[in-house]
Amino acid sequence: MNRKNFLNAGFGRRGFLSGSSLLLTGALLGATEKSEAKPAEVPDPPADGPQDKESLLADLVTANHILQDQGVVDGYGHVSVRNPTNPNHFYISRWLAPDLVTPSDIVELDLDCVSVNGDTRKLYSERWIHSEIYRVRPDVKSIVHSHAPTVVVMGTINEPLLPVYHMGGFLGTGLPVFDIRKSFGMTNMLINDASKGKALAQTLGDKPGALMRGHGGITVGNSIMHSVGRSVYLKINAEMHLQAGGRKIETLAPEEAKLAEAGNQEFPKDWDLWKRAVLAKR
Amino acid sequence: MNRKNFLNAGFGRRGFLSGSSLLLTGALLGATEKSEAKPAEVPDPPADGPQDKESLLADLVTANHILQDQGVVDGYGHVSVRNPTNPNHFYISRWLAPDLVTPSDIVELDLDCVSVNGDTRKLYSERWIHSEIYRVRPDVKSIVHSHAPTVVVMGTINEPLLPVYHMGGFLGTGLPVFDIRKSFGMTNMLINDASKGKALAQTLGDKPGALMRGHGGITVGNSIMHSVGRSVYLKINAEMHLQAGGRKIETLAPEEAKLAEAGNQEFPKDWDLWKRAVLAKR
Amino acid sequence: MNRKNFLNAGFGRRGFLSGSSLLLTGALLGATEKSEAKPAEVPDPPADGPQDKESLLADLVTANHILQDQGVVDGYGHVSVRNPTNPNHFYISRWLAPDLVTPSDIVELDLDCVSVNGDTRKLYSERWIHSEIYRVRPDVKSIVHSHAPTVVVMGTINEPLLPVYHMGGFLGTGLPVFDIRKSFGMTNMLINDASKGKALAQTLGDKPGALMRGHGGITVGNSIMHSVGRSVYLKINAEMHLQAGGRKIETLAPEEAKLAEAGNQEFPKDWDLWKRAVLAKR
Amino acid sequence: MNRKNFLNAGFGRRGFLSGSSLLLTGALLGATEKSEAKPAEVPDPPADGPQDKESLLADLVTANHILQDQGVVDGYGHVSVRNPTNPNHFYISRWLAPDLVTPSDIVELDLDCVSVNGDTRKLYSERWIHSEIYRVRPDVKSIVHSHAPTVVVMGTINEPLLPVYHMGGFLGTGLPVFDIRKSFGMTNMLINDASKGKALAQTLGDKPGALMRGHGGITVGNSIMHSVGRSVYLKINAEMHLQAGGRKIETLAPEEAKLAEAGNQEFPKDWDLWKRAVLAKR
Repeated sequence: MNRKNFLNAGFGRRGFLSGSSLLLTGALLGATEKSEAKPAEVPDPPADGPQDKESLLADLVTANHILQDQGVVDGYGHVSVRNPTNPNHFYISRWLAPDLVTPSDIVELDLDCVSVNGDTRKLYSERWIHSEIYRVRPDVKSIVHSHAPTVVVMGTINEPLLPVYHMGGFLGTGLPVFDIRKSFGMTNMLINDASKGKALAQTLGDKPGALMRGHGGITVGNSIMHSVGRSVYLKINAEMHLQAGGRKIETLAPEEAKLAEAGNQEFPKDWDLWKRAVLAKR
Repeated sequence: MNRKNFLNAGFGRRGFLSGSSLLLTGALLGATEKSEAKPAEVPDPPADGPQDKESLLADLVTANHILQDQGVVDGYGHVSVRNPTNPNHFYISRWLAPDLVTPSDIVELDLDCVSVNGDTRKLYSERWIHSEIYRVRPDVKSIVHSHAPTVVVMGTINEPLLPVYHMGGFLGTGLPVFDIRKSFGMTNMLINDASKGKALAQTLGDKPGALMRGHGGITVGNSIMHSVGRSVYLKINAEMHLQAGGRKIETLAPEEAKLAEAGNQEFPKDWDLWKRAVLAKR
Repeated sequence: MNRKNFLNAGFGRRGFLSGSSLLLTGALLGATEKSEAKPAEVPDPPADGPQDKESLLADLVTANHILQDQGVVDGYGHVSVRNPTNPNHFYISRWLAPDLVTPSDIVELDLDCVSVNGDTRKLYSERWIHSEIYRVRPDVKSIVHSHAPTVVVMGTINEPLLPVYHMGGFLGTGLPVFDIRKSFGMTNMLINDASKGKALAQTLGDKPGALMRGHGGITVGNSIMHSVGRSVYLKINAEMHLQAGGRKIETLAPEEAKLAEAGNQEFPKDWDLWKRAVLAKR
Repeated sequence: MNRKNFLNAGFGRRGFLSGSSLLLTGALLGATEKSEAKPAEVPDPPADGPQDKESLLADLVTANHILQDQGVVDGYGHVSVRNPTNPNHFYISRWLAPDLVTPSDIVELDLDCVSVNGDTRKLYSERWIHSEIYRVRPDVKSIVHSHAPTVVVMGTINEPLLPVYHMGGFLGTGLPVFDIRKSFGMTNMLINDASKGKALAQTLGDKPGALMRGHGGITVGNSIMHSVGRSVYLKINAEMHLQAGGRKIETLAPEEAKLAEAGNQEFPKDWDLWKRAVLAKR
């Protein structure tokens, strides 16, 4: 694979960012950072047009491994990315623990979760988490479903999860909590059909993520790097909240949270670090 | 070893599951998942008849290593499996830390904990945990004895351990707590003879597991994969309970727990993941 | 090194255990366990006479690494063993982080902490922890000084650390807490001379260990394996106490604790496991 | 590189320590320790004159890796060292996750954060944390910016972080908390210009470190080894504070803290241990 394309994994921003966030990011970059030369380890600016499929799927595989390594998923949990050339399709692994995912395990589904290539392999029972959010959130390019223990706990204790620090800025004034019992009564807690996926997407609204009572959580993003970064900082922020042990936490004011989120971009420094960590273990 | 048999380790369901749970599992499978092709990494459907001995013992050895790797046991704790061809026998390691177990360490005992092959090697002092549960629970095919710290704590603080999330569904309305002092007065806390094993089995009743005050816990299952999966999720659920730090937790309703349990099957995705992790370290 | 002697490391009990605990151990062994054959991995019965020096020092080096690996020490903390052929001498590493210790780093000191071989290398500033306890406790053959965080915390919150489970049985009705300020006023908290060592030994009394306010803790034992095992279970028990978050814990009754302690012997299963773990990392 | 210079990394004390702390350290050394021979693993006494640049930058790279390994930083956070031959310059990595830093990534900046070599590579947006502290603290030779979760929490719960044990002695009567909102209103929480750096330096005063509300913390020191050691023990001390779960902690008296700090020197035993750990992973 062409190294430049590989390093662009996740950075195909031209095709992804909406106009306004691009302007905001540009303004911040101008205000805070020097112009950069191009050493090997810093990702190149996005190439024109959408990211090529091979490097996108390589990033999706890497994202699966990162999520396991960072404690966001275990045997359960998943990550997907919208097809940059067809917004009605998305890529996700077949039914498999994320840490075991390889490129040949990736399938392409449409928004009814039908495999577009006639692939008949078993799929995640909760694929509708992804399809139904992609359906109503054109800005979302990638979704992570998390089973991190502290994230699970935060969905059950009726306390808002507010940003304890700037890396959690995207949490804003808190994430919505989806409680499947409200619309569906007693279930096995799984988002295992379209109507449950739609209900979750409705609770998510325009937020960067949601907690799922008795289950876990989700984060969405402009790119794989973005949804993965958010899922890790959601987990860390949940850990901090619980470490405070019930004390009053001076969390970020809403305006601070918003400014901090813009300052974090899509967590590129983390992506490089986390990717290197999982490559070293294979 | 034949790869198909190896992958069937733990999936010899035909010989194991009772009729009603097989029906329930079948109904859920029909409702939630697509038909599957047969890629290498997903376990094949169970072969006819019981699993062959060689692969069963390989799984038992792997289970020992998984339990150490997942923090369920340390120098102490053990796992056993009933002999599929003779329900009055079971396999367990000789006296050894689980992480050190190899196939040559496995012994076969009858329900009086007598070695059936004249093996004279030292055995676990608490082998009666296993024999006495196998004696009264024909549905149980595998047992894990856990020393996970959070599980120990949950047996001492007089709070029910309810499912915080769907992976703990099998916890239902809570596990019974065995307090050895009630029947035996002051002891060294060990289940080191048949009468103590019988008392523990009585407390266990028809439940999927029990806590042991001042000691640890046990989980039982339809297969090695099942008892091991339950022991890990028992530990994770206990951690979540304690992380909530005394706050009220919105745990799963009894009906949700029951449905969630059925939805989890016997944790096959975890088994593949955990097995790969321990193989990578040897 | 002769494998049999190596495996006897820590098991030179004939020279170590007092008569009464030997009887008690024998009675328990008779009651609970089958006679053992001699597979390679289970330690042989103690050889006659004291353990040879080479294998003893190898065990001391291993103990240093185990203590780091198990989180009992970090850059600080140490372990020593009494010279089995001269009770007025003991072996300890020179001033070095425990994980870096090799056989050539071991020095032999007398009870005034003078090097017996004219070795002039820098020593631990707190070597008097060891010398002064050996001076007044002829039963003690090995001492560990711990900096485990949860052990440090337990020395500062004015709550007795009672056995939460049977592996902490040796904690009995709690460990004494040494507060250096009581006898020495304001200091740098270090046991850096004989008088402070004597004060600590006095607080220790005939107990298996002591906490040191604002500092850490110590455990003593009949052998390296025993003091090391106690230091790890002290740490685990402290963790459990803190995980319970202030709730009332149903701890072991004094009689249960005593019986449990006898049942644990000197933690041989753990030693084998922990040793294998550190050998695998070198 | 000359091994002696390499081991002196961080020990160029002659050029670094102020007169009074040198006297105090000398007095303590005389009182507590034997004279040392010169085995390979114990750092040599400082060479005359400042440390050579090559070994200094090697230590700075190692410090970056240690900080990741010890959980003080993750994708974010940084460490710098003042140029011993020009106090108006300092060395720091370019914009990169600390664990990825290599010698070629180090840049040299002046106190206005201008690169002195015309290097145009992207820099940390928070480099003014370093420049503005070096500007007003001539005693400070190295600075660490930490994102350790427990340190973040301690900056938000309005409780002083006092030394729980002697290794936290430098915390004295507590660290100041910098709240950016007080002087700058709503921001993205980053110290991303000179005025914010000056405000942080003012809050720091003459202390060994400061917490930053909603952000993390900083530690300063006489050398890389010193600032790094303090950052790790700040983290551990914060963990202990939170593990105590709101209970009253018998922390070190101010006099004990001062004496303990002097007794710890600059954490040389830790540096050797932590360095060896990161070298083993590369």
